[in-house]
Amino acid sequence: MNGAATSPDAAVFAYAAAQVKKAMEVSKALGAENFVFWGGREGYQSLLNTDMNLELDHMARFLRMAADFKKEIGFNATLLLEPKPQEPTKHQYDWDAATSLGFLLKYKLGGEFKLNIECNHATLSGHSCEHELEVSRINGALGSVDANTGDAQTGWDTDEFLTNPVDATRVMLSVIRNGGLAPGGFNFDAKLRRESTDVEDLVIAHINGIDALARGLRGAAKLVEEGRLESLVRKRYASFESGVGAKIEAGEVGFKELEKVALNSEEPSTRSAKQELAESIFYSYI
Amino acid sequence: MNGAATSPDAAVFAYAAAQVKKAMEVSKALGAENFVFWGGREGYQSLLNTDMNLELDHMARFLRMAADFKKEIGFNATLLLEPKPQEPTKHQYDWDAATSLGFLLKYKLGGEFKLNIECNHATLSGHSCEHELEVSRINGALGSVDANTGDAQTGWDTDEFLTNPVDATRVMLSVIRNGGLAPGGFNFDAKLRRESTDVEDLVIAHINGIDALARGLRGAAKLVEEGRLESLVRKRYASFESGVGAKIEAGEVGFKELEKVALNSEEPSTRSAKQELAESIFYSYI
Amino acid sequence: MNGAATSPDAAVFAYAAAQVKKAMEVSKALGAENFVFWGGREGYQSLLNTDMNLELDHMARFLRMAADFKKEIGFNATLLLEPKPQEPTKHQYDWDAATSLGFLLKYKLGGEFKLNIECNHATLSGHSCEHELEVSRINGALGSVDANTGDAQTGWDTDEFLTNPVDATRVMLSVIRNGGLAPGGFNFDAKLRRESTDVEDLVIAHINGIDALARGLRGAAKLVEEGRLESLVRKRYASFESGVGAKIEAGEVGFKELEKVALNSEEPSTRSAKQELAESIFYSYI
Amino acid sequence: MNGAATSPDAAVFAYAAAQVKKAMEVSKALGAENFVFWGGREGYQSLLNTDMNLELDHMARFLRMAADFKKEIGFNATLLLEPKPQEPTKHQYDWDAATSLGFLLKYKLGGEFKLNIECNHATLSGHSCEHELEVSRINGALGSVDANTGDAQTGWDTDEFLTNPVDATRVMLSVIRNGGLAPGGFNFDAKLRRESTDVEDLVIAHINGIDALARGLRGAAKLVEEGRLESLVRKRYASFESGVGAKIEAGEVGFKELEKVALNSEEPSTRSAKQELAESIFYSYI
Repeated sequence: MNGAATSPDAAVFAYAAAQVKKAMEVSKALGAENFVFWGGREGYQSLLNTDMNLELDHMARFLRMAADFKKEIGFNATLLLEPKPQEPTKHQYDWDAATSLGFLLKYKLGGEFKLNIECNHATLSGHSCEHELEVSRINGALGSVDANTGDAQTGWDTDEFLTNPVDATRVMLSVIRNGGLAPGGFNFDAKLRRESTDVEDLVIAHINGIDALARGLRGAAKLVEEGRLESLVRKRYASFESGVGAKIEAGEVGFKELEKVALNSEEPSTRSAKQELAESIFYSYI
Repeated sequence: MNGAATSPDAAVFAYAAAQVKKAMEVSKALGAENFVFWGGREGYQSLLNTDMNLELDHMARFLRMAADFKKEIGFNATLLLEPKPQEPTKHQYDWDAATSLGFLLKYKLGGEFKLNIECNHATLSGHSCEHELEVSRINGALGSVDANTGDAQTGWDTDEFLTNPVDATRVMLSVIRNGGLAPGGFNFDAKLRRESTDVEDLVIAHINGIDALARGLRGAAKLVEEGRLESLVRKRYASFESGVGAKIEAGEVGFKELEKVALNSEEPSTRSAKQELAESIFYSYI
Repeated sequence: MNGAATSPDAAVFAYAAAQVKKAMEVSKALGAENFVFWGGREGYQSLLNTDMNLELDHMARFLRMAADFKKEIGFNATLLLEPKPQEPTKHQYDWDAATSLGFLLKYKLGGEFKLNIECNHATLSGHSCEHELEVSRINGALGSVDANTGDAQTGWDTDEFLTNPVDATRVMLSVIRNGGLAPGGFNFDAKLRRESTDVEDLVIAHINGIDALARGLRGAAKLVEEGRLESLVRKRYASFESGVGAKIEAGEVGFKELEKVALNSEEPSTRSAKQELAESIFYSYI
Repeated sequence: MNGAATSPDAAVFAYAAAQVKKAMEVSKALGAENFVFWGGREGYQSLLNTDMNLELDHMARFLRMAADFKKEIGFNATLLLEPKPQEPTKHQYDWDAATSLGFLLKYKLGGEFKLNIECNHATLSGHSCEHELEVSRINGALGSVDANTGDAQTGWDTDEFLTNPVDATRVMLSVIRNGGLAPGGFNFDAKLRRESTDVEDLVIAHINGIDALARGLRGAAKLVEEGRLESLVRKRYASFESGVGAKIEAGEVGFKELEKVALNSEEPSTRSAKQELAESIFYSYI
């Protein structure tokens, strides 16, 4: 109710530790490859009655214990946090990928955890799903994906099956760039609509979901193989491959050197970001 | 247009470096105590044409150059980032306080920058203003405040004067807990409504703004002095001051010891979070 | 599950009719003065499987039956619709006050129903609570109020007690302008937080709620009595009380006459909307 | 600044009347077939300084003058309102399709105006574009479409070209069901991104836009022709074609008759809404 690792009650913290210890032992026995912490109640309903600093310290301490225990028992699964901004609490500490990664860095837990990204949670935090996937990927933390979708116009977790081929293609672009997800994968954390009460609806929903992912994978694979989008992007940043750009990359220049460069150059020319061209390329693979 | 430190064009990076260098020199000459980086165009409009990883590396490199140059010329101002989620770009890299602080940690810039929190930007990122202030404060990074307010029902930056005494009291609670803001302070980054065209409107708006802050400060000061809210909060977390709680705080126990505690204890009792009481206390100071 | 009056199944429509008939009979026996229809499932989850036009026709037919039955049995309560945009459905037909009133007009049910406004539902539909109250009031349809509050930063119905004196004052301004709410009133459709588990929390919450309304009423009453805000507003529109303005109000002029006026006048002068002054006045009553 | 038809200044009302009169005369001379009123400033920034009731009366009066003048000069264009919730004002009176249609009904302007729907405005009002199109269509008011798209994650009007084939197919479904849009049509109210500075970007953007619409039209046409979705929907509502359902449709029964039906029937059976099947059908046409 008030969180586990972030409960104001030390007895709850201890109780939760015992539960997670047991779950890790069982998971090890079952050969689990992933172990996800979804902190649905690790957050607050109101700042008026909350010591956020202390709660975050406790959460870090709890996760450190989990990482230590994992090693102690030789449990080789990937530990994962699952970012979510809110619901059930008003504000969940694992708000989004960037917040979760910053938390791990602050508490020196960076190497111990990856992220499990859920597209619906991305929507709730004001990001696109591919944003969350990319933030995870470029930080070496894209571990697994809850393959569902939400509704951009409601503010709650609808957990629908992913059916839109455009969304699926964007998701798969990140997965390919990540070199796949192993030992993670796609988890169908999606539900039938409450009004879908026939047995066949369950089958149809899963077919929709896996078909959408397959369609997305095929489009994304072709897009990456043919390289038009990657080439457009590479070209945009080409000025960092030589001259002053390469020196910036190499850390060889500071403000003083760059001022000299600027004073000896024309004003930078205007260069189009080519967004419409990028969209034209992308949508031709749907 | 495409960012300065995160521009895909190395010539723009150099040009921006020269500009910021000059601005720092002038600021030093003027005795500036704060120097704010508002990265309004350090972000992206579309991930399709963007190398987010490279752009973040460049942003870090640019800020490192700024921090180095500051020391080199003996400029003693606090450097500040100003979190904002979006507008003008669709996604700004300094999304919110937690994202900005995580970025600083990742690139080992943590000690070099504080944050300048704007309440309207908090709203846009899905947070309350006090959340952003508190995240900054507990990370030792609450440097300064843009004292404005937005509209919870529009999705854009309205930059209105802060007039609501409830909001002002919440803001001031954080400031008091922070021991004040020096060398930062409150900056009136607020504007008249476009339809307020009389000269006196400008005077009225500033009176409204400073009066709201004064009213908030008086209420918050009394609230802190009388200590009822702080006492309620301290009491909630009291179980961490002795027994197993103290051992958790001291890092003396892990999952195994806590499992023993849990097995030898009754199930934790249900303890109210007292949110309504906290609200009752808080609103009695408005 | 799929709605009652808007169910695709005629048997459900009949079943719901029988239930509402019984509820009206019981309500009459109990001397009820208000009878609220909250159409939580009268809406859709997806337009792909929905005939919105037919469903709206059915809803109107159902409400017409209710209005007729009420008269037939001499049940003198006010019938009320309660606008809500969504949750549990993705899109509820009684989206907001304006949508509900337009629906009633279209189906000639205007005189039969008033509205029961809930502040939390206002927030969910992108409006302020006072907007919904005022839209209802100026259409003679402000019947009753569910006195709760939501959270501007979550997208779901939190049903909290109204505690903010600023919000309460705004609500009470509408109620006073409406000449009160009788035979409706304020209904405490608010709940304790799930984490508030002490018996006293229930008492504290109700005290908070009624105190906030009382505080709002006192401030709003004084504001209306002293007349500074009303006077500011009246002054803004004074040009419609004489000259061409009065002719516009009287319907005596059309485009041709107004063109002549415009051609014979200077360009209209710029007049301040005095929003900051209005806010200054308003907040001095909190 | 403070609106035209809803300005608090009668001189501005007259001035605006003269301008619209002239624009109608010129439009007639040019053979215009549509004449759109986009009321970007017909709304309010704050309810504190606004007489909403009076402003709405004035807006109705202005539109009545326009409708009368149109007939007087024999101008045969369709008059259209363009719903938009906000921006530049905080609250625009033509909030969405339902609000605009309710306004027209209240002021007996229903037959005089149709709606011009913009997908980006739909997003801003918390609706899907197809919702706004369908609300307009079933009320006989779908006049024209501003073919752009917004961003579901920002709260402002981005006016991007429509490029997503899924969105385009949904839009075209409504247009086909409407029997086309004549004399309206699709207006490219979309802009290049600010960073797209090459001349060719303008060409690419328009190709993207028209290609997306063409793709949507082909998919939607096939979807309608093959009839699988329409058949699924018709089947859901089949119970209203005979028995008690037909009597409900014919207005032959009230609560008393329906109670008898309910008492003499089993509890209604649970029938699936088949949403996943509908989605499966729909996405197979993308």
